[in-house]
Amino acid sequence: MTTPSRRDLANAIRFLAADAVEAAKSGHPGMPMGMADIAEVLWNDFLRHNPRNPRWANRDRFVLSNGHGSMLLYALLHLSGYDLPIDELKRFRQLHSKTAGHPEASETPGVETTTGPLGQGLANAVGFALAEKMLARRFNRDGFEIVDHHTWVFLGDGCLMEGISHEACSLAGTLKLDKLIALYDDNGISIDGDVSGWFTDDTPRRFEAYGWQVIRNVNGHDPVEIGQAIKTAQKASGKPTLICCKTQIGYGSPNKAGKESSHGAPLGKDELALTRSGLAWTHAPFETPEAIAQRWDATARGAEAERAWTSLFDAYAAQHPELADEFHRRMRGELPASWDDASWAYVRKLQVDGLTVASRKASQMALDAFAPLLPELVGGSADLAHSNLTLWKGSRSVAQESPDANYIHYGVREFGMSAIANGLALHGGFVPYDATFLVFSDYSRNALRMSALIPAHAIHVFTHDSIGLGEDGPTHQPVEHLASLRYIPNNSVWRPCDAVESAVAWKVAIETRTGPTCLVFSRQNLQHQHRTEQQVQDIARGGYVLMDPADGTFDLILIATGSEVELAMQAARQLSDAGTKVRVVSMPNSNMFDRQPLEWREGVLPSWCRKRIAIEAGVTDYWCKYVGLDGAVVGIDTFGASAPAEVLFKHFGITVERVVELARAL
Amino acid sequence: MTTPSRRDLANAIRFLAADAVEAAKSGHPGMPMGMADIAEVLWNDFLRHNPRNPRWANRDRFVLSNGHGSMLLYALLHLSGYDLPIDELKRFRQLHSKTAGHPEASETPGVETTTGPLGQGLANAVGFALAEKMLARRFNRDGFEIVDHHTWVFLGDGCLMEGISHEACSLAGTLKLDKLIALYDDNGISIDGDVSGWFTDDTPRRFEAYGWQVIRNVNGHDPVEIGQAIKTAQKASGKPTLICCKTQIGYGSPNKAGKESSHGAPLGKDELALTRSGLAWTHAPFETPEAIAQRWDATARGAEAERAWTSLFDAYAAQHPELADEFHRRMRGELPASWDDASWAYVRKLQVDGLTVASRKASQMALDAFAPLLPELVGGSADLAHSNLTLWKGSRSVAQESPDANYIHYGVREFGMSAIANGLALHGGFVPYDATFLVFSDYSRNALRMSALIPAHAIHVFTHDSIGLGEDGPTHQPVEHLASLRYIPNNSVWRPCDAVESAVAWKVAIETRTGPTCLVFSRQNLQHQHRTEQQVQDIARGGYVLMDPADGTFDLILIATGSEVELAMQAARQLSDAGTKVRVVSMPNSNMFDRQPLEWREGVLPSWCRKRIAIEAGVTDYWCKYVGLDGAVVGIDTFGASAPAEVLFKHFGITVERVVELARAL
Repeated sequence: MTTPSRRDLANAIRFLAADAVEAAKSGHPGMPMGMADIAEVLWNDFLRHNPRNPRWANRDRFVLSNGHGSMLLYALLHLSGYDLPIDELKRFRQLHSKTAGHPEASETPGVETTTGPLGQGLANAVGFALAEKMLARRFNRDGFEIVDHHTWVFLGDGCLMEGISHEACSLAGTLKLDKLIALYDDNGISIDGDVSGWFTDDTPRRFEAYGWQVIRNVNGHDPVEIGQAIKTAQKASGKPTLICCKTQIGYGSPNKAGKESSHGAPLGKDELALTRSGLAWTHAPFETPEAIAQRWDATARGAEAERAWTSLFDAYAAQHPELADEFHRRMRGELPASWDDASWAYVRKLQVDGLTVASRKASQMALDAFAPLLPELVGGSADLAHSNLTLWKGSRSVAQESPDANYIHYGVREFGMSAIANGLALHGGFVPYDATFLVFSDYSRNALRMSALIPAHAIHVFTHDSIGLGEDGPTHQPVEHLASLRYIPNNSVWRPCDAVESAVAWKVAIETRTGPTCLVFSRQNLQHQHRTEQQVQDIARGGYVLMDPADGTFDLILIATGSEVELAMQAARQLSDAGTKVRVVSMPNSNMFDRQPLEWREGVLPSWCRKRIAIEAGVTDYWCKYVGLDGAVVGIDTFGASAPAEVLFKHFGITVERVVELARAL
Repeated sequence: MTTPSRRDLANAIRFLAADAVEAAKSGHPGMPMGMADIAEVLWNDFLRHNPRNPRWANRDRFVLSNGHGSMLLYALLHLSGYDLPIDELKRFRQLHSKTAGHPEASETPGVETTTGPLGQGLANAVGFALAEKMLARRFNRDGFEIVDHHTWVFLGDGCLMEGISHEACSLAGTLKLDKLIALYDDNGISIDGDVSGWFTDDTPRRFEAYGWQVIRNVNGHDPVEIGQAIKTAQKASGKPTLICCKTQIGYGSPNKAGKESSHGAPLGKDELALTRSGLAWTHAPFETPEAIAQRWDATARGAEAERAWTSLFDAYAAQHPELADEFHRRMRGELPASWDDASWAYVRKLQVDGLTVASRKASQMALDAFAPLLPELVGGSADLAHSNLTLWKGSRSVAQESPDANYIHYGVREFGMSAIANGLALHGGFVPYDATFLVFSDYSRNALRMSALIPAHAIHVFTHDSIGLGEDGPTHQPVEHLASLRYIPNNSVWRPCDAVESAVAWKVAIETRTGPTCLVFSRQNLQHQHRTEQQVQDIARGGYVLMDPADGTFDLILIATGSEVELAMQAARQLSDAGTKVRVVSMPNSNMFDRQPLEWREGVLPSWCRKRIAIEAGVTDYWCKYVGLDGAVVGIDTFGASAPAEVLFKHFGITVERVVELARAL
C-alpha cells in the first residue's frame, strides 16, 4: 500500500464501526460513517492527548454528545493507541466488554463522560470548559500555563433540539468559554427521517444570539475545510465556537447514505459489501492495514506532549511548590489533611450549641464552616441563591473572572446546571454543588441519574422539601420526589432533621467520591435534637436510634426523617406518658442505612418488632420496606395545597395526634 | 372621579396584587406591577372572552407562563367579571381559596392551565395554538370560521432561560402557529438579581432563528406602543409572534421598582404606603372605585362576542349538522356511541387470537383498531416513531396541513412534547398521546407531573421498558422509572403483559378523562396469556388473578407485571409440578388496583397469605407494599448493562430459577 490518504484514514473508522455494528447485530453505523472525516482531522492534527495516560491532567477533553455513534469513539481510541484492543471492538455491545452500546466513562479508558441521553454530553462539555477556565485562573502563573487545554464536543441534530442545549450553550456564551469548540454533524436526518418537518431552526443564528462564534457551511467530508475551520476556532475570539459541518449520514453506503435507514441498524451484509467496494476498502472486518494503523498511532506524539507538560510543571513546582502540591491534591480528589479533625470539630460544636434553624440555613452554616478548607468546592443555584442559601461568606461569582471564583449563577436552568456540574466533577479539580427547589429536581432528573451512572462526585442541594414550604402550593410542593430520588441506583439522599444531621450530611457528601449525593433541606425551622457522642457518630450510618425508653425495651418503633423527626419525638413522649414504650429512629439517609451490615440494620430495626410507624411528608408506599404489612405510614399521597405550612400539616393529617392514634390501633 | 385613565385601570391591578400579597404575607408583587399596563391593554382592547362562560369553545386562551405573578391573573379575572369575588382575593394563598399561590386550572374559573414551573405555560400555549389550528382545519368551512381564536401568553426571563422554551418555540416556528402571541416581560431581573451575569441572550435574534416574528423594544408601560405591537402581531405574518416589552419590575414602588427585592416578597407596609402616594392611589386595600370597575367589566362585551359566535355556529349547524354534532362531542370530551361495543369486541378478539407480540407492537395494533373511531386522538413521538410504534395506518402529519392531520413529529423534545400535549388536552377537542423511551420520561418528568396535577387527559406512551431493550445499555435502560411514575399522585401507570392487556390499557386510558395515563410497553415479544371472559373483564381492575391451582387453594402468590408475567407463569408451573400450590397475579396497573374496593384487593391478595413474591425488572423496594417483610422481590436495583436481553435477564437474576429458589426459601 502507498502512503494512505486522509480518506483511507477516515475509512478505517467507517469500517471498524460498520463491521462492529454488523457483528453485534445492533448499533448505529450512520453517525460514525458521517463524522469519520471530521474525527480524523481533529484527532490526527489537533487533539492533544496521550493514549498511554488517559488521566493526564492537561489533556484535551473530547466528548461525543451524540453518544449513539459510540463506535466512532471506540475506533478512535483503538486506532490512536488507548488500551482498547481489537478484541474489545469485536465484542461491541456484549456483556463485560469495554465497548458498551453507548460510551461509559466508568468502563472504557479514554471515554471522558457517559453519553447517549441527548444534549447532556454537550452540557458536560460546558462543564469541562468551565473547569479548565477556572482552574487556569487559579493555578497558572506568568510563563506557566499549566492548565491550558481545549474541550471538543461532537453533536448532532438531536442534541440541538433538546432543551438542555439551550440552557448549556446560553450560559457558555455568557461565560465566554472560548476553549470550547463544538462540531455539529449537520446531516439533516434524525430517527424519524428528514428533519425539515420538525427542525427548521437557523442554528448559526441561534448560536450567535448566545454570543458564540459560528463557522458556517463547512464541508464535513473535506479535510482541508475542516482543518481551516478548527484553526479559526482555536484563535482567540473570546467566545465558544460552533463549527457547522454539512455531512452525509452513512457516508459511503451506496443505498443508505443520507437516509435514516443508516442511523440505528446494521447496514446488512449485502450493503456492507457494496460499501466496501464503493470505498475501495479491500480489508477483512476488523483488519486495519499496517500503514494506516501507523499513521493513526498517537502514542509517541502523546507521550511527547505529556513529557513537555511535565517538564513545564516541574519548573512551576520549583517556583511555586505549594501551588503545585495543591494542584495535585485537587486533581487527585483528595481532601486536605486538616479535613477530618476540623469537620468533626464543627459537627460536635453544633451538637453542643443546640441551634433550632431551618436545615437550609444549617446547610449554609455548614458551607461557611467547611468551604474555607475546600477551594475545590464550586457552588451554584438555578436562580435561587437566596432561597437555597447556597452563597457562603467566601462565595465569588465566576462572572467576575477572579482566581478565587467559586460560585456559578446558573440562571433558571436546572437540567443544564446539573449536567454542567457533572462535567465539572469529571474534569477534576472541583467538587461541584448545585441547587434548586426539591420539586424542580424533576427538571434535572436525568442529569441526576447520570451523576449516579457516570458516576460523578456532584452534590445536589434541594431545599423547600415538602408541603412545609407552604403558600407556593402544589406546583412547588414535592410529594413523590424523595422516594423517586432514593430509587436511582448509586444515589445517596439525605433529609436531615436538624443542624447536626445537616452538617454530617454535608461532611459525608464531600467525602463520598464514588457518586453523587442529594442534600434535601427544609424551608422551615427544625428543632435541635439531643444526642450522645455515639449518636453523633451514628448519623453517618444513615439510620440510627435517636431515642429509646430508659430501660432500653420498647413495643413500638417510630421511623422519621427531616421535619417529621420532631413530630415523632413528640408522639413518642405522649405515648410514653400513656404507657407505650417507644423507640424513635431517625433515618436521614435510607440509601446509606440499606448499605449498612445486617447487624446494624437489625440493631436499629429488630425483626421481632413489627409495630412500626414511619412518618415523612411524602408518598407513604416508600416506607413499606421498613414497616411491612403490619405497620403504618403517615405521609401524603396526593398533591399538596396553597396555605401556610402549619395549616397544611394539619389538613393532610401529618400530626402528632395522627401518629398517636395509629400507634394505638396497631 | 373623572373618567379613569389607562394608568388608573392598570393601577387597579397593581394594588389588588400588592395588597393581596401583603395580606397573605407572601407572594410575588413585582411581576403584576410590572406587567399591569400590558395586561390592561390586552384584556380591555383585544382579548375575546366571556367572563360569564369560561368554557366558551371559541374564547381566546390566555396563559400566564410566569405563574408566580398569579395575582395579576386573579386581578384580571376579578375585574373583568369572572366568578372570582373580592373575598377570594382577600384569601390569597389560603386553604380552600380559589386564589392559590400559583394559578391552578382545576381551582379557579378562567385559569386555562396550571402554571408556576417555569417555561411550561409557554409550552402549554404552543399546544393551545396548535389545537386551534388543527381544529380550524378540521371543522371550518367557507364562511364559517367557527374555530378562530388567539392564544396569548405572558412570560418572563425565567421562562426564556428554561430549556423547554427552546423546544416548544422551535416547534411553534416550524409549525407556523401564527395565532400564538407571546408577550415577554423583559425586566432584566430574576431572583438572583440583574440577569446580565447569567442571561445575555439576544432573545429577538434567537426567536427569529426559530422562524418567529419578533417585535422589539416595546415600552411595556406605554399603552399606545403596546396596542400597536399587538395589532401588528395579529396581522397575518404566517408566524408566531414574540413582543418584547421593556418593563420595570415592581413598577410604582419608589424603593423596590427595578429590583429583585420586589420579586418574591410583600413590599412591606411602609413601602406599600409610599407606592400608594407615588401612584396617587387613594383607595383602601381591595377597593376598586366604581368608575374603574365599570371600565374593566367585560361581561356585556363578552356575552355579545359569544352570542355572535353562537349565531354563526347555529347557521353552520344548519348547513353542516354532522360536523356541528361532532364538534360538540369532541369539545365535551365524549366518546362516540359505538365506542364501548367496538372496543370490547376488539379486546375479546385479541384474547381469542392469542398473538405473541411485543407490547409496543400490540400498542400499535390497538391504535389501528381504536383510532379510526376517534378523530380526536392526536399522536406523536419525540423522534422515535418507528421505535415507539406510534404511527398507525391513518396517521397524517400536522406538517402537511391537511384537515385530517393527527400526528405531530415532535422532534427530539421530550419535555416540550408532553407540555404541548397538556395544552392540546386542555384546549378541548383532542386526546393527545405522545411517546418516547421509558428512560427518557426523566426528560419530561415535570410535564408528566403537571398532566396529573392540572389534570389533563393526556396519554403518555413509553416503550423499551426495562433491561429487556438490550444492547443500548444502562443509559437507555429504565430501572427506577416505573416506581417513580407510579408515585406521582393521580397518575395511572400500565405495564401490560401481552396484547390483550395492552389493548385494555389503551381502552381505559382513552376513557379516563380525569387525568393522564402512562402506557409502558416492551421492546421484546411477550407471550399471550390464557384468560376466561371474566378475567378479560378484570384486567381493568389493575390487578387480578391470572392463574389459580385447579382446586382454588394456594400457599404462595406470585405477583408480576409486563414481561415478567410469563416468567411468573413458568415458575408457577415448575413449583406446582413440585407440589407447591401457586396463585399468579397479573398487576398491570398498581395505581388502579390500589383504587379498587378493599374487597377486591383482599380477594386478589388475601391477608392470610404472606408467602408472596413480586417480580418486575425494576427497583424491588416498590413491591414491598404488597409482599411486606415476609415476602421477596425479584428485580434490579443497580444500573443495567449493554448486552443482548436474554443475557441480561440471566446476568441480573431475573429468571424462573431465581423465583423458584426464593419460593422454596420463604
